[in-house]
Amino acid sequence: MSESPESAIARRHFVNDPRRIVPEALAGFERANRTLVRWNREPSFIVRADDDRPDQVGVLSGGGSGHEPLHTGFVGRGMLDAAVPGGIFASPTALQVEAATTAIDRGLGVVHIVKNYTGDVMNFGMAAEMAASEVEAVLVDDDVATESEDGPGRRGTAAVIAVEKICGAAAARGASLAQVAELGRRTAAGARSMAVALHAPTHPGQARASFDLGEGEIELGVGIHGERGVGRRQHAPAAELAEALLAPVASALGLASGDRVLVIVNGLGSTHGLELSVMFGEAARLLDARGVEVERALVGPYVTALDMAGCSLTLVRLDDELAELWDAPVRTPALTW
Amino acid sequence: MSESPESAIARRHFVNDPRRIVPEALAGFERANRTLVRWNREPSFIVRADDDRPDQVGVLSGGGSGHEPLHTGFVGRGMLDAAVPGGIFASPTALQVEAATTAIDRGLGVVHIVKNYTGDVMNFGMAAEMAASEVEAVLVDDDVATESEDGPGRRGTAAVIAVEKICGAAAARGASLAQVAELGRRTAAGARSMAVALHAPTHPGQARASFDLGEGEIELGVGIHGERGVGRRQHAPAAELAEALLAPVASALGLASGDRVLVIVNGLGSTHGLELSVMFGEAARLLDARGVEVERALVGPYVTALDMAGCSLTLVRLDDELAELWDAPVRTPALTW
Repeated sequence: MSESPESAIARRHFVNDPRRIVPEALAGFERANRTLVRWNREPSFIVRADDDRPDQVGVLSGGGSGHEPLHTGFVGRGMLDAAVPGGIFASPTALQVEAATTAIDRGLGVVHIVKNYTGDVMNFGMAAEMAASEVEAVLVDDDVATESEDGPGRRGTAAVIAVEKICGAAAARGASLAQVAELGRRTAAGARSMAVALHAPTHPGQARASFDLGEGEIELGVGIHGERGVGRRQHAPAAELAEALLAPVASALGLASGDRVLVIVNGLGSTHGLELSVMFGEAARLLDARGVEVERALVGPYVTALDMAGCSLTLVRLDDELAELWDAPVRTPALTW
Repeated sequence: MSESPESAIARRHFVNDPRRIVPEALAGFERANRTLVRWNREPSFIVRADDDRPDQVGVLSGGGSGHEPLHTGFVGRGMLDAAVPGGIFASPTALQVEAATTAIDRGLGVVHIVKNYTGDVMNFGMAAEMAASEVEAVLVDDDVATESEDGPGRRGTAAVIAVEKICGAAAARGASLAQVAELGRRTAAGARSMAVALHAPTHPGQARASFDLGEGEIELGVGIHGERGVGRRQHAPAAELAEALLAPVASALGLASGDRVLVIVNGLGSTHGLELSVMFGEAARLLDARGVEVERALVGPYVTALDMAGCSLTLVRLDDELAELWDAPVRTPALTW
């Protein structure tokens, strides 16, 4: 039986009722990681299973589902105290965020790490007003593809991993609410990203991809929900694509010889580890040529866009304090050292 | 510009010269993980960067590339001392295996963990004869889809993760060559797997998938190189597919109420974490119904088949000793606790 054109791009998924995929996945995730996390079913959020921090600032993040392991996979010792998942590509409700904030507050306040999307900003903001807790919000807005847009500003993407790791490490060391928030803001201010899609994602239970790319076309500056980017171009060798991602990021950060960075090469869903390693090698080579020091690296699918093929490149400026917090021990389902 | 039928299934990859993807990926992998691993370029193998085990048995594995993070991602303290990568889906040479064996031998011998493929078995066997080291081979042959075939026997798939983890932990505790090999063989003997493909993989640099599935068709019993399985069937909800994977595995192991298992739900490449969590939840529910105790779990893309969509289910019988070795500390690029 040969494929019809219609079935040729059909994606099949492991799903029962597509409307139930998020709660079913959360139940499976909790059970697979039960020494690390617990799922609060109603309202829905993931918390640490072993939360033994009486005297620490709480660190909370969240956002739409479909980006796993972000954010639920980063709940645990040394990173997030809780994560609030919305529906697929949909913001969590203020009620969810407020309940999670209350659950993790030990009287020292809670930092909200919020990716810059209208719904997330609004619902985390409402939750901060509703909650009895003292809350400091850290906004993550790293995507240079949306730099010049009017309106909501740059989107938040993979830099959120660095902000969550550094805030979590600071909180674990007993930093105050203001200190944790300041470290998060400093990390976000020194972080920029750029993504490229080689193939569009497909929503679970749907057969057709969420956008079409023409023969040999790729989409530069794509968002983690498959939002249109800065433009389409012809596919090219990895070395060229790495330069297309790195140049605007390095420029936005004003990187110069001697600067130190964390490099995140993030898979957007269905791009293979071999390809991500090739892209990391190319990015490192380009940074070498600029005299920028690649001090730390993270390569893998950490902030996905369902099964989109593609990757994002994030550079995060490091200083001694940020590097030490990045290196601090962490134990979560998706990140451990 | 609308997609033509031909481009509709076109996959684009991050690659320069497809013939160079493996060495380029190894160079990037080494650089991203330089505190953990070192790449020996000629002959090609990955070794621990911090190899400080004067009095331990060496543990070595390897096989074709395209399955990353397997095996190179499992090199580090508490797991593999070295991994030998072949080309994409191609066995490493006997020369590579022999050189890696010699490099990690501390005079106490080396265990070879070999997935059951003709080329791997032959080349690891030749290397064992060539090497001055004392070598014990542990064969991993867990794929029940190939149970009844004449010829080379069951294929080796994701059970190799458990064998590598348990042998590595035993070696780190100072077990003898015979003891490490016995533990590996016991683990392999108690492990069976079954896979299903929802979409075929595409080789880097090629646009067309390596096999066609008809409209709504999936392939049960597929191998990790896209080998044909036990048959095609219509796509079905996750609960049904979990039963289709679990029933033959549980039957092959003769699992009964009260038995204890490690459950591995492994993504084959482009299947999203949400879907893997749903499948794990379904598998755990089916094991609950059989009275089998889900003692440990590992969910994620650990043994991939390039960008194939699909997953495999592996069950590994546990006893107190194997569970303790599974739990022992490990620090590698892909597995850390």
